[in-house]
Amino acid sequence: MERTDLTLAQTVLNAIADSILVCDDGGGVVFANPAARRFFKPYNLSPEGQPLAACLSIFKPEGRRELQNHLRTLQTALPDAAEQPEIILETETQVISVYAAAMPPPTGVRTPWLALVLRDVTRPFQATKSKSDFVSMVSHELRTPMTSIKGYISLLLQGVAGPLHPKQEIFLDIVQRNVDRMTTLINDLLDVSRIEAGKIQ
Amino acid sequence: MERTDLTLAQTVLNAIADSILVCDDGGGVVFANPAARRFFKPYNLSPEGQPLAACLSIFKPEGRRELQNHLRTLQTALPDAAEQPEIILETETQVISVYAAAMPPPTGVRTPWLALVLRDVTRPFQATKSKSDFVSMVSHELRTPMTSIKGYISLLLQGVAGPLHPKQEIFLDIVQRNVDRMTTLINDLLDVSRIEAGKIQ
Repeated sequence: MERTDLTLAQTVLNAIADSILVCDDGGGVVFANPAARRFFKPYNLSPEGQPLAACLSIFKPEGRRELQNHLRTLQTALPDAAEQPEIILETETQVISVYAAAMPPPTGVRTPWLALVLRDVTRPFQATKSKSDFVSMVSHELRTPMTSIKGYISLLLQGVAGPLHPKQEIFLDIVQRNVDRMTTLINDLLDVSRIEAGKIQ
Repeated sequence: MERTDLTLAQTVLNAIADSILVCDDGGGVVFANPAARRFFKPYNLSPEGQPLAACLSIFKPEGRRELQNHLRTLQTALPDAAEQPEIILETETQVISVYAAAMPPPTGVRTPWLALVLRDVTRPFQATKSKSDFVSMVSHELRTPMTSIKGYISLLLQGVAGPLHPKQEIFLDIVQRNVDRMTTLINDLLDVSRIEAGKIQ
């Protein structure tokens, strides 16, 4: 390893916007790049020298548990680097995408160290969520007029509002078939929203 | 800077799944981490020693141009690290999110060097796109039965299929109002799809 490469690596970690944390085999943070220090500052945390668990305590429990399970797997088996899963961590105001990797520990240590890359994805995440929420809302709102249309067409066909001329009946039959077609499509939209809600929330 | 920190930085760059490229003031790639070497291998490119432009040639022109403009800005003015924009690059099969940062150059050089972090976001990107395509398709499909319903209700109200009893007319009026309400909602969905298509494609 050339000296220049080593300095370069350090300079890269100083420059990038992603937060990098390195955690030793004892679960302690031994390195945080400037972006990581900036990230944890509003939480009154200075990561270096802290247990990783203390740094992660700013996140909601769900994602934190998933990450901690994944970190345990990384320290016991060495999976292919290409298969690192993205884990989403949330604070009250921020959404963070985390990738973790096992790192060779110093000589004499058997448990791998861990490198965590934290990226702020609050903005793209919220944009997707707003869109999903909108589609979900519109799909639900479509049901009310649809139910009303369905009901009145059915009553008209039953002759509740008066007898029908044969041509009127034909027209109302066509309307009813189209109403059924729309109901199916709206249910498809609602299914997508439901699947999504189950995944995201 | 401690020697251990320098080695650690190098080890981090070796371990992480994100591709890192460092580009010097002359536009040449002077460093690529193992993930970056793996990423460019299927394109028969070994980034180190190549012009950055050669590495970027694997991506479609739109994102590439945006990135190159951004890199020029980074090398002429030093913006706040927190304001680095995400730039999306696409090949035929992959979607890559790029963050670029200016790096202090070696002593005697005035133009900043550049650190590029490339992350494969193909899977989340495609998931979002599939969902959007589905919503767009359903919204368009809703229009056909809607138009048919609207047309037949209007004909019935005009008495084209025969005269109406007052109660039938009241029912059909209610149906028509609900049809109008649905049309507005479906147009809202179509607007979202159109805005999205303009942004994504």
